[in-house]
Amino acid sequence: MCAAIAQTLGLSKSRIEALTDGIFATLMTVLVLGLALPPPGTSLRDELFGLWNHVLVYAMSFVVLGVYWVGHHNLFHYIKGTNRVFLWLNIMFLMTVGFTPFTTSVLGVFWLQQSAVALYGFNLMLPGLSLYLIWWYATRDHRLVDLDIDPHVVTTVKKRIVTGPVVYGIAIGLSFLEPIISLILYIVVLAYFILPGHIDIHFSRKHH
Amino acid sequence: MCAAIAQTLGLSKSRIEALTDGIFATLMTVLVLGLALPPPGTSLRDELFGLWNHVLVYAMSFVVLGVYWVGHHNLFHYIKGTNRVFLWLNIMFLMTVGFTPFTTSVLGVFWLQQSAVALYGFNLMLPGLSLYLIWWYATRDHRLVDLDIDPHVVTTVKKRIVTGPVVYGIAIGLSFLEPIISLILYIVVLAYFILPGHIDIHFSRKHH
Amino acid sequence: MCAAIAQTLGLSKSRIEALTDGIFATLMTVLVLGLALPPPGTSLRDELFGLWNHVLVYAMSFVVLGVYWVGHHNLFHYIKGTNRVFLWLNIMFLMTVGFTPFTTSVLGVFWLQQSAVALYGFNLMLPGLSLYLIWWYATRDHRLVDLDIDPHVVTTVKKRIVTGPVVYGIAIGLSFLEPIISLILYIVVLAYFILPGHIDIHFSRKHH
Amino acid sequence: MCAAIAQTLGLSKSRIEALTDGIFATLMTVLVLGLALPPPGTSLRDELFGLWNHVLVYAMSFVVLGVYWVGHHNLFHYIKGTNRVFLWLNIMFLMTVGFTPFTTSVLGVFWLQQSAVALYGFNLMLPGLSLYLIWWYATRDHRLVDLDIDPHVVTTVKKRIVTGPVVYGIAIGLSFLEPIISLILYIVVLAYFILPGHIDIHFSRKHH
Repeated sequence: MCAAIAQTLGLSKSRIEALTDGIFATLMTVLVLGLALPPPGTSLRDELFGLWNHVLVYAMSFVVLGVYWVGHHNLFHYIKGTNRVFLWLNIMFLMTVGFTPFTTSVLGVFWLQQSAVALYGFNLMLPGLSLYLIWWYATRDHRLVDLDIDPHVVTTVKKRIVTGPVVYGIAIGLSFLEPIISLILYIVVLAYFILPGHIDIHFSRKHH
Repeated sequence: MCAAIAQTLGLSKSRIEALTDGIFATLMTVLVLGLALPPPGTSLRDELFGLWNHVLVYAMSFVVLGVYWVGHHNLFHYIKGTNRVFLWLNIMFLMTVGFTPFTTSVLGVFWLQQSAVALYGFNLMLPGLSLYLIWWYATRDHRLVDLDIDPHVVTTVKKRIVTGPVVYGIAIGLSFLEPIISLILYIVVLAYFILPGHIDIHFSRKHH
Repeated sequence: MCAAIAQTLGLSKSRIEALTDGIFATLMTVLVLGLALPPPGTSLRDELFGLWNHVLVYAMSFVVLGVYWVGHHNLFHYIKGTNRVFLWLNIMFLMTVGFTPFTTSVLGVFWLQQSAVALYGFNLMLPGLSLYLIWWYATRDHRLVDLDIDPHVVTTVKKRIVTGPVVYGIAIGLSFLEPIISLILYIVVLAYFILPGHIDIHFSRKHH
Repeated sequence: MCAAIAQTLGLSKSRIEALTDGIFATLMTVLVLGLALPPPGTSLRDELFGLWNHVLVYAMSFVVLGVYWVGHHNLFHYIKGTNRVFLWLNIMFLMTVGFTPFTTSVLGVFWLQQSAVALYGFNLMLPGLSLYLIWWYATRDHRLVDLDIDPHVVTTVKKRIVTGPVVYGIAIGLSFLEPIISLILYIVVLAYFILPGHIDIHFSRKHH
């Protein structure tokens, strides 16, 4: 049994997780660098209160990253092995997530402009699609999951993941009518992911 | 017993800790990017000595981050499981900590201005409140701690955590009178957390 | 057996891997900071579409880092010990990789200029040469690998690693004729590394 | 035996190492951000060759960070426990290391100016002094090391650590005469630390 642990420590899965944790940790920190400091000499208090939309966007992106980190974590719970395709799908996921500091500061600076709102939604759509692809690839013919995985879990996770990109797609369309509606949708979809759902069953381990 | 270790390695608790360590490591590094380089051509020596307040603020924020990192670490020592609410309280904690590079550079640039001093205190108050919430949630009805946890530990940790936000609140109020008093209070509260206290008992493991 | 694990946890190899993972995670995040935000007031949509080459270069560098991270990972699979020379060859590898955010933004800003294209290729050549040196040093007289390592593996890995620097060298030469050919070569060599090869045999662990 | 491992995983020592690895990884990456991109329109090739001193300083600082990371690692090999004072000495060490990206870019921009050269040396002196303090505190009365630690190791490590700060101190003094001599000394001291020494005995684990 101990030999099995030793093997697990050297496994690619744990290093993909380490890279993922590292990238998310850095992204969550780098986000705030987009908060531009007002130049010395201006009325500081007014300037700081004028940053409220930057702070809102920062907080929103931080929570988005949290949602994707948790989603990736939950998904990896079922992964039993890795291969080259799986690895590169994960790097693609990380690459799409890596754009968020850029699109976040664009949205902060160009507040409520249609292009900025759509770009932000488009950015957030991509990691969702990547996660969907990862899950589809891993579960297809039980490629990288247990043979006895509950089929209900496979379907529930699939549905849950696809919700994000679908809503972001609708939000991008609506941004041409009224950008603020898209923003509200971005926040609503976060609430959907933060509040408890079906896949939480495996997640509550207490007093084990 | 080995099986238990394997399970522990896959636990959410250890990945929350990994994300926390990663974010704190990046924050502690990113802080220093707020040290603005004087433009070439000026008298370098004077410029460097003129940065003393930036360096002081940087050092203060570095120690604050150290205090919160240690506090989070000590608190997690007692946590035996995780759930969705607990996870998101932790992400909230990390988000509030994530603002420190911004408020630190604001305080460095707008040295001793009331708004900057108050903003800094407000920023530092939020992780303390989040930690308090995390501890309250985890210990309430022994939700995520051992059933036989010493009630004295629960209360001592609670009191210790709440000290920070209370002092920061007072310091924010006093900043309207005299910003320098707030700064001194910020440093005093750090000394309080760095010097040994009651919760240190579990912390000294030597020659085990 | 458990004692062996304890020893493994304290080994230099795992800490070199930790540093490597941390540096790659930060690099992959910092890359995107090179995406310059257009100044407020310009036509945002045009500006964003005008960034397509920056985005392309960013994506290319992200994948390059992924390739080197995977390559380092695969190589370390065979490493059984460390010593001072090996450690410093690894730090040299990390240093050369550390230049990529700089050369990436140079290539983004000075799009298709010969110097920028050649500099980028030169930067990407160095980690490949370092990896080659690491592998050569570790396998020479079975210095840091198992005595019974398959000689075919040693040669295959060597050939595969050396392909990168050779192609980058050719691409640098060709940049004096036509920079766009070099860029195409940079992308072709990535495809070569991403698509499966001989060293994948050990990599597919499934349903173990 | 397995129980002992489980305990080790939760130990402060491993989390201090995790924070240390994370901070060094980020620092080594952030260093390169000090490489200022020439503004578009200038002769790129000349500008890039004009950056040679920035590149030299970057490489030097990268190696310095490598030396301190290895030094910290080697020192931690002997540490068997932690306490509050030890923890805060480590955070002090990390804080002093955290200044290197700033002093590195100062030295890059203000090339060979006495203040910049002295500041850089002063910065590099501080982590050495912190490491010395950490080692002195941990070994004093065998506080955090094994009772049967070889006294020769204690002395050798002490001497080796103190060499850095002493040389940096001399270099700072010499910078008032001729800054370039200080720079040469900075490089010489690196060579001293990179080349093998007495404490390497425990470090070579091969074919175990």
